[in-house]
Amino acid sequence: MVAMQIHIVYAHPHAASLNAALRDESVATLEGLGHTVTVSDLYAMQWKAVADYDDFGPTENEHFMAAAGEAWDKGQVAPDVRAEQERLLAADLVILQFPLWWYTVPAILKGWIDRVFTNGFGYGTSRDWPRFGDGVLAGKRAMVVVTTGAAESHLSDRGVNGSIDDLLFPLQHGVLFYAGMQVLPPVVVTGAVHRFGDAEYADAAKLLRSRLETLDETESIAYRKQAEDYDDAKRLKPGLEPEGTTGFALHIA
Amino acid sequence: MVAMQIHIVYAHPHAASLNAALRDESVATLEGLGHTVTVSDLYAMQWKAVADYDDFGPTENEHFMAAAGEAWDKGQVAPDVRAEQERLLAADLVILQFPLWWYTVPAILKGWIDRVFTNGFGYGTSRDWPRFGDGVLAGKRAMVVVTTGAAESHLSDRGVNGSIDDLLFPLQHGVLFYAGMQVLPPVVVTGAVHRFGDAEYADAAKLLRSRLETLDETESIAYRKQAEDYDDAKRLKPGLEPEGTTGFALHIA
Repeated sequence: MVAMQIHIVYAHPHAASLNAALRDESVATLEGLGHTVTVSDLYAMQWKAVADYDDFGPTENEHFMAAAGEAWDKGQVAPDVRAEQERLLAADLVILQFPLWWYTVPAILKGWIDRVFTNGFGYGTSRDWPRFGDGVLAGKRAMVVVTTGAAESHLSDRGVNGSIDDLLFPLQHGVLFYAGMQVLPPVVVTGAVHRFGDAEYADAAKLLRSRLETLDETESIAYRKQAEDYDDAKRLKPGLEPEGTTGFALHIA
Repeated sequence: MVAMQIHIVYAHPHAASLNAALRDESVATLEGLGHTVTVSDLYAMQWKAVADYDDFGPTENEHFMAAAGEAWDKGQVAPDVRAEQERLLAADLVILQFPLWWYTVPAILKGWIDRVFTNGFGYGTSRDWPRFGDGVLAGKRAMVVVTTGAAESHLSDRGVNGSIDDLLFPLQHGVLFYAGMQVLPPVVVTGAVHRFGDAEYADAAKLLRSRLETLDETESIAYRKQAEDYDDAKRLKPGLEPEGTTGFALHIA
């Protein structure tokens, strides 16, 4: 096993929550394996969730993406944002851990994405910007650890919530893979409601540890690289997918 | 045409942006039609984006959903949250307008969802809570107005971003329809980058006005009601969908 630098971005508002216990399991397990771990505990850091013009130097540009790009070009990025970018650049593996709120990340973690993956760093607007499989974080891996109040069946292929794989697609493919990272299958702890007791916790911790102990041999999700499988209009080239495939599944080889 | 009470929840950080101009078009068009319009301009209101324990009265409950439910039961909901809930309850139609940031809403709007659709109001954890087609906002309608930097083809059925309908599904189905609202097809303004000029703006404004002028006769998206089409495990009953349907499309009749 190769020792890695691992950065955990963590979002839960209570210091004694299920999520906090799972985060502690992760840190202990990973350090026990010889990895080095950093944690951004967004609530504890009082992370500024709202992307706004205070993140930039002075600008009159009413186009927010363009203003963000100007700030990047001038090196006028907010210090808390720059610190997170440095942690991402230093990491071999990035773990995002959060409770699923309204089918996606809590606002504070969305604000981490909005602010850290800024124009010039996390994305670019030019046609030839390297994205979806290439980018600033190429060569790194990422993994989501998520708790859900919903039961597993509600999040299954025919579940009313939509499948957890589809719900996580905009985050895993649209953010993490967009910026170049290979994305490992998520660790999903379902049914995390007040009925979640000691036995359920033991199962969840065991699942989490087993995934952390097998990072080396875990295959990433086979998202298709934009540079290879898409045409100039950024549409999937015809004929690549099994017949009848539709939706987000199109983008997995 | 029936005069309606319409509430617009709006999120963009610049007062002179494309989004601001489109919001003003909406207000003028709707008021011109005889409707009454309220606007929650989240950036201007400095909306608190982060759901945390400050939203509740005193509690020791480390389970955030449960703590939220306690606060609701005791009437200890933050005043800004309560005011938004009242505006939703008073509305016939709710419009969410925002730029698509990382394939979903900006953090400030995610925080509006996280905080306003709180346990007891927007959702419940009991098995028989009325959801997906029933709920506190049943009888009302909702519509998303969204600008995207990406071009239309990138967001089309085979586009690398995922289709805009799939990207909006967790918001439209998982939040708006969950709480009981019928959801009208979204107004999507693509290619909203710095190349967006007067001609593009004129087209976007025309599209928006035409949709606002035809609200009465616009059919909502045919999301399936949980109470009718799902089994006890909240999975879609077999045989209801056209053969081969997968993904979020399963949940549209």
